[in-house]
Amino acid sequence: MTRVAVWLGDAAEDQEWVDLLSSLLPGIEVMPMDTAGAPDIDYAVVWAPPAGALARHPGLKAIVSVGAGVDHVLRDPELPKHLPILRTTGPDMVQRLREYVALHVLAHHRDLMTTDAQQGRAEWKQLVTPVASKRRVGVMGLGRIGAACARTLAGLGFDTAGWSRSPREVAGVAPFHGGSGLHDFLSRTEILVCLLPLTDQTRDILNADLFARLPRGAAVINAGRGGHLVEADLIAALDKGQLSGATLDVFRTEPMPADHPFWQHPRIRVTPHIASYIDAATGASVVASSILAFDRNGTAPDVADANRGY
Amino acid sequence: MTRVAVWLGDAAEDQEWVDLLSSLLPGIEVMPMDTAGAPDIDYAVVWAPPAGALARHPGLKAIVSVGAGVDHVLRDPELPKHLPILRTTGPDMVQRLREYVALHVLAHHRDLMTTDAQQGRAEWKQLVTPVASKRRVGVMGLGRIGAACARTLAGLGFDTAGWSRSPREVAGVAPFHGGSGLHDFLSRTEILVCLLPLTDQTRDILNADLFARLPRGAAVINAGRGGHLVEADLIAALDKGQLSGATLDVFRTEPMPADHPFWQHPRIRVTPHIASYIDAATGASVVASSILAFDRNGTAPDVADANRGY
Repeated sequence: MTRVAVWLGDAAEDQEWVDLLSSLLPGIEVMPMDTAGAPDIDYAVVWAPPAGALARHPGLKAIVSVGAGVDHVLRDPELPKHLPILRTTGPDMVQRLREYVALHVLAHHRDLMTTDAQQGRAEWKQLVTPVASKRRVGVMGLGRIGAACARTLAGLGFDTAGWSRSPREVAGVAPFHGGSGLHDFLSRTEILVCLLPLTDQTRDILNADLFARLPRGAAVINAGRGGHLVEADLIAALDKGQLSGATLDVFRTEPMPADHPFWQHPRIRVTPHIASYIDAATGASVVASSILAFDRNGTAPDVADANRGY
Repeated sequence: MTRVAVWLGDAAEDQEWVDLLSSLLPGIEVMPMDTAGAPDIDYAVVWAPPAGALARHPGLKAIVSVGAGVDHVLRDPELPKHLPILRTTGPDMVQRLREYVALHVLAHHRDLMTTDAQQGRAEWKQLVTPVASKRRVGVMGLGRIGAACARTLAGLGFDTAGWSRSPREVAGVAPFHGGSGLHDFLSRTEILVCLLPLTDQTRDILNADLFARLPRGAAVINAGRGGHLVEADLIAALDKGQLSGATLDVFRTEPMPADHPFWQHPRIRVTPHIASYIDAATGASVVASSILAFDRNGTAPDVADANRGY
């Protein structure tokens, strides 16, 4: 009998997924994952599994990442790298990121931080912002999610560019790629959105050097991974005015500690990794169909490669 | 010689418009308006002119409202009601309202007020919001601006409805109209956007009775006019939880007095009438082309009727 095991690091959440997946996968046994290795399983549905836990299941056919990224799986030094990793980027996940990116790009575009601060002082002062067609926004990462977000920004009227490692064309989005395209992309981008996968090439990419290449007063939105951002460099760039603001959804340590300086910084908006939260109710059906497709065909719509890193 | 006079209530701003319009209207004399009536003028470009000022210019051919609404002109009890009123709704104005409505609908949809409050307490708590397709939003007023905003919300994925006095069809937007359609429109609308013109029929329309017809926990965005909203009813509806939040751009008295309770209310976001601020740089060309079109043809693209009220 085919067996699926779930590990999200929280017993109640695991059980919710087990119950939903059980109802969606008739004839397949679904259970919480035993990190000690028994019984043997065919598919592991995971977020950040403990080091070595997956290696203790030698019968695994594939790993299902509960998320669009797979860096939380790759952190395991004993990861069986030959296994395909099925990413979870269902329509709800893409839609949630479209919403998040549209909301926070518009918030920087219309300078909501300043308007809100004025409200706190009961200060009536009309800010004039350019229309979106005069505002240059840029999306780093043009995978399925990044491309959808870039198209959404273009649809709102923004002068939109995209940057990716290899050339990608997205309708209505000015294309830049590779190391040679990065400088031109950054020098034109007033509001930068990071939606990159976290790999050895992209780790720490949001650093002082990158911020210095943006126009003075640019804003940065990170909905990629905490590991993309050099935190001290962000605060320095904000405090000297090179950046006007930042919106962060992902952090080096999550949950972010209560004494972290980001919480109280007046030009940083913090959201608790909710840009595209996958809840069990909507995520389980995407995971179930990935498993069924893979079990039938040996492949699935959205497979990551552990050696490539995304 | 054709003469154009400008009155916006601020001498420096009037002069900026005079300079810009002069350069855009060669062969036409442009000057600040003399509210005493001399010299005689053909066109008055105004925001909230003093009572009787327009009546003192019997040679007027048309009034140009610096704004999409005309209620500030109609307030004048001595207004020469036979004169056409040319509204100013250029592409920038429509675009700015699209941005404002998208931003603030998304902010309520993703419950940014709660996320921001959590940030103030350094509290990491993930909120799960439905995707936009499960969120019912509604736009009141489907003129040129309202229709564009409703289409924008539908494009972002929201389940979008529109309500207007007479039947209007907007692609992708569920249509409701008239008194008979209002109840059904309100009972489905979780985030309500008011973009109505201010007339005797719409004055005070955002009141306790309307709020009670919305689903409990709905949010209200007013980018119409301050006169649409019964202010005490809004505070009562928020304080008892019938409404979860409100975003207001327009007020009974502008600038809003520093001691007004809206400034400090935790569930009200105040913006200082900037949803579609018309600045001289972009507005003057729209006004100039309205005047040139009217002077040539006796009509213009966007003419209000003083007797109808919008």
